[in-house]
Amino acid sequence: MSSPPRTLKIGLVGFGNFAQFLAKTMLKHGHTLTATSRTDYSDLCLQLGILFFRIPVSFLEANNDVIVFCTSILSLSDVIKAMPLNVLKKPTLFVDVLSVNQHPRDLLLQELPEDSDVLCTHPMFGPESGKNGWKDLAFVFDRVRIQNEALCSSFLQIFAGEGCRMVEMSCEEHDELAAQSQFLAHTIGRILAETRTESTSINTRGFETLLHLKENTLRDSFDLYKGLFMHNKFAARELEKLEVALQKVKQKLLEGTNEEPNIGLANH
Amino acid sequence: MSSPPRTLKIGLVGFGNFAQFLAKTMLKHGHTLTATSRTDYSDLCLQLGILFFRIPVSFLEANNDVIVFCTSILSLSDVIKAMPLNVLKKPTLFVDVLSVNQHPRDLLLQELPEDSDVLCTHPMFGPESGKNGWKDLAFVFDRVRIQNEALCSSFLQIFAGEGCRMVEMSCEEHDELAAQSQFLAHTIGRILAETRTESTSINTRGFETLLHLKENTLRDSFDLYKGLFMHNKFAARELEKLEVALQKVKQKLLEGTNEEPNIGLANH
Ligand SMILES: NC(=O)c1ccc[n+]([C@@H]2O[C@H](COP(=O)([O-])OP(=O)(O)OC[C@H]3O[C@@H](n4cnc5c(N)ncnc54)[C@H](OP(=O)(O)O)[C@@H]3O)[C@@H](O)[C@H]2O)c1
Ligand SMILES: NC(=O)c1ccc[n+]([C@@H]2O[C@H](COP(=O)([O-])OP(=O)(O)OC[C@H]3O[C@@H](n4cnc5c(N)ncnc54)[C@H](OP(=O)(O)O)[C@@H]3O)[C@@H](O)[C@H]2O)c1
Repeated sequence: MSSPPRTLKIGLVGFGNFAQFLAKTMLKHGHTLTATSRTDYSDLCLQLGILFFRIPVSFLEANNDVIVFCTSILSLSDVIKAMPLNVLKKPTLFVDVLSVNQHPRDLLLQELPEDSDVLCTHPMFGPESGKNGWKDLAFVFDRVRIQNEALCSSFLQIFAGEGCRMVEMSCEEHDELAAQSQFLAHTIGRILAETRTESTSINTRGFETLLHLKENTLRDSFDLYKGLFMHNKFAARELEKLEVALQKVKQKLLEGTNEEPNIGLANH
Repeated sequence: MSSPPRTLKIGLVGFGNFAQFLAKTMLKHGHTLTATSRTDYSDLCLQLGILFFRIPVSFLEANNDVIVFCTSILSLSDVIKAMPLNVLKKPTLFVDVLSVNQHPRDLLLQELPEDSDVLCTHPMFGPESGKNGWKDLAFVFDRVRIQNEALCSSFLQIFAGEGCRMVEMSCEEHDELAAQSQFLAHTIGRILAETRTESTSINTRGFETLLHLKENTLRDSFDLYKGLFMHNKFAARELEKLEVALQKVKQKLLEGTNEEPNIGLANH
């Protein structure tokens, strides 16, 4: 096996919000980047020193060591299936950074050539929470199919080198924990947006944390949130738990009193 | 009208969690405290330099300038009605610190002698959020019936002097804003407790703020939360908005897709 390459040729598929955020740090580490996306990012890429390919074939022929899927969760399947993977010139490490893990794992194993490596990851931070560096922020990964260990380590070093807390776990375990934590937080943020929750002149500290949560949730696309739900098999259960919990809280508020609350519940 | 007394004789009715927290700062300001409560706090009061009366009559005869109701929202009515207010020796400033305002306002105006003053307040902080001082934390108040301005100012100075943001508003306005903010935050905290939300090994920042919210909410008694609901006429509407919002979010997650999410919703 070849010794670990110092600088990698990394291709990014999907050059939206999160890919742009990741690219800055990858460039800082001295890696050479190429990108392709639905939207034309030629100008932005030119500024950043990234080669942008409008056509997937040209992107795939660019001889990348690593190809990172940074598309929305919902579009990954279509994006992969539209790629003429037979033009690849060498065994490549395929990585995804989607906020769910089992779904890309299944897709990548199904669609990619057998000689390619597969690393499923989820950096548990984004442009907002990671704006002051990535130190101590969790980077979750699963070495799904790795033959070239050196290459995989070089790629992981981008995150380890930034001080991320490197958490290796199965895609399934990730999805279960992420549904209980991240999906739940996004759901509360979306609910608060739906109730049009706004700052008042008498915010408590607790309420202020909810306002921040709402604002941060809305920075992410609805596609991202929907992807968390549609492609994480544990998410629907968490949503249901939330519904049940709300009903239980309501019941506890009403139980044991014959009085109606001050206002009749029907009174509005 | 007499000049503002420098040090006040303040009597606390209800010497639970929040009264003990307030008492420390009142003592620091040099005021003389007495207390009465359902539970016997004689020993604790002795340590703190507070005179504790088991019997309401003796408490009322102690010639306080100010009497502060610090009981639970749910018990205020019974507590006031059980007090032999006719033994009061002089016009007194009655204050409440309940987390709702209209309910104590109505009760105090109804039950207290007409020559007594009434100040409804809500310090929008507690032992947790106020543990490092009260600077910039909101203190909401309504001078419901004040004849002795000097006495009222001296009392308010406890909070102003600590750097609280002094917010004067009607009891009704307070209740409306507090339902939209504090009650909502408590409700989310209670819901999270009900879903048994716990820390995972891969918490996002957003999720961590929810864990803190849950923990802080559970530090307050369920009586307090129930009081926020039962005696704030705007609270039921907020609870209903939350239910509707959850359904809307769910609907948006499911709409426009013929696919079921990855897991069948019935699948658990
Ligand atoms: N934002 C975060 O904090 C964060 C953190 C960790 C992981 N992630 C993951 O990173 C990925 C990207 O996230 P994001 O925040 O940039 O927003 P996103 O809305 O999840 O994804 C946007 C990206 O998906 C592409 N895309 C969307 N629909 C497409 C379609 N129908 N066909 C082809 N491409 C399509 C967009 O391409 P164009 O730009 O070319 O339109 C863009 O590159 C997601 O999988 C997300 O779960 C995000
Ligand atoms: N905790 C906070 O952060 C905070 C902040 C602002 C305002 N407040 C308000 O301050 C008041 C006190 O709050 P808290 O945190 O101490 O907890 P709480 O559970 O709301 O009230 C506890 C107090 O109520 C008394 N009490 C409860 N049931 C009673 C009954 N049936 N008969 C007589 N007394 C009864 C307790 O007396 P014993 O101790 O003698 O049993 C204790 O003094 C509440 O009105 C609350 O809304 C609290």
